Amino acid sequence: MAVADVKALTFDVFGTVVDWRGSVSREIAALSADRGLDLDADLFADEWRAGYGPGMNKVRTGEWPWIGIDGVHRRRLDELLVRFGVDGLTEQEIDHLNRVWHRLDPWPEAVEGLTRLKSRYIISTLSNGSVALLTNMAKRAGLPWDCVLSSELSGHYKPDPESYLKAAELLGLEPNEVMMTAAHPGDLRASAAVGLHTAFVRRPDEQGHGTGLANKPDLESDPSFDFTASSFNDLADQLGC
Amino acid sequence: MAVADVKALTFDVFGTVVDWRGSVSREIAALSADRGLDLDADLFADEWRAGYGPGMNKVRTGEWPWIGIDGVHRRRLDELLVRFGVDGLTEQEIDHLNRVWHRLDPWPEAVEGLTRLKSRYIISTLSNGSVALLTNMAKRAGLPWDCVLSSELSGHYKPDPESYLKAAELLGLEPNEVMMTAAHPGDLRASAAVGLHTAFVRRPDEQGHGTGLANKPDLESDPSFDFTASSFNDLADQLGC
Repeated sequence: MAVADVKALTFDVFGTVVDWRGSVSREIAALSADRGLDLDADLFADEWRAGYGPGMNKVRTGEWPWIGIDGVHRRRLDELLVRFGVDGLTEQEIDHLNRVWHRLDPWPEAVEGLTRLKSRYIISTLSNGSVALLTNMAKRAGLPWDCVLSSELSGHYKPDPESYLKAAELLGLEPNEVMMTAAHPGDLRASAAVGLHTAFVRRPDEQGHGTGLANKPDLESDPSFDFTASSFNDLADQLGC
Repeated sequence: MAVADVKALTFDVFGTVVDWRGSVSREIAALSADRGLDLDADLFADEWRAGYGPGMNKVRTGEWPWIGIDGVHRRRLDELLVRFGVDGLTEQEIDHLNRVWHRLDPWPEAVEGLTRLKSRYIISTLSNGSVALLTNMAKRAGLPWDCVLSSELSGHYKPDPESYLKAAELLGLEPNEVMMTAAHPGDLRASAAVGLHTAFVRRPDEQGHGTGLANKPDLESDPSFDFTASSFNDLADQLGC
């Protein structure tokens, strides 16, 4: 089935739609100032995110039970508060901080690009964030989803095949009527392996700006991807939206 | 926990948000004219809907396996095509007709009322319609949901308790932070039984207009409901939206 038969675009969210690093770093910097601490906010954000993949892998291998993404974030946060020497937060304050992942800001062109893509396709999240996280994020940021889907609904985190196949099933579509859109080649390769179409959108600032970044964004496309774009607006141009 | 703590409104859809009877009847009337038949379109719509509750009950009791709502609608439609003497439709045409339930028109004030309620609350579907059906319907009708939830996600049709509790869980909320909104007292009583708040919205035309209707809408509120309203706009007024 050709790309012309695609009816829905599913989107990775952290990094693809929203700037997790900038958003988390801003809240950590505000906390640091508020408490008279001297936290390296970018490093804190990077270290927090660094616990994300390994945390999900512990769920995937059964070392941890299924815990929502808030649980994965919280276990890492509890470690980091000790490591960075942040004392004296109440449980309520820690819980609020943990939900910074519900309050991430979109890339500047994301809402406009999604709105254009929505004119022609069903647009849905397909994230390892929970339905609650994605719903709260969308409401705050004005992300115009037709539908909020999460790997939570399959009980398997991406890149497990079940996560992609469950999303297609819930949309009432065949896998090849769905196109996964992500800034992460691994997410797209796993999607393609179970029959989805793929659109790679480069987000060169996901790991921060400038040189000397601790982590480099993966900007290398793959000839097997159906589309490679520099933004959602560019993807909308290529798709004729 | 008081009504003031409600963070999300979940909505029954068929009859509460959309006019299923008028919408189905219009498509049946168009089919009848197109084919030179003499179908009683209102009766066809009523008879189709009459198979809905019993079909879900067959799933609930295990007589039928879990079949999506399209499956429940289709089994009834296949019976009715024979009973009403509609011949010669292709499989594609029957499938398209079956999906009329994805193409239902909202009550005239529904989009405006929902938009007002959305300004203060998370608004989500909580229907026995599937995620796909509800997503297609919302896209066509411009229903401004923050999130599309379905009893499908619990594997239990309403009014089973699991359907309501799963929706609250997916929203990351306690049951009493959620208010079920419906035109059907039974749906609300089942919601209240598992701890949700309740808003009854009367839809006097759900079963058609005028006198001598085959089925009467249930317009009797219950003192135990938190709110009783004549429309979504009225509910928005009462909630200060």
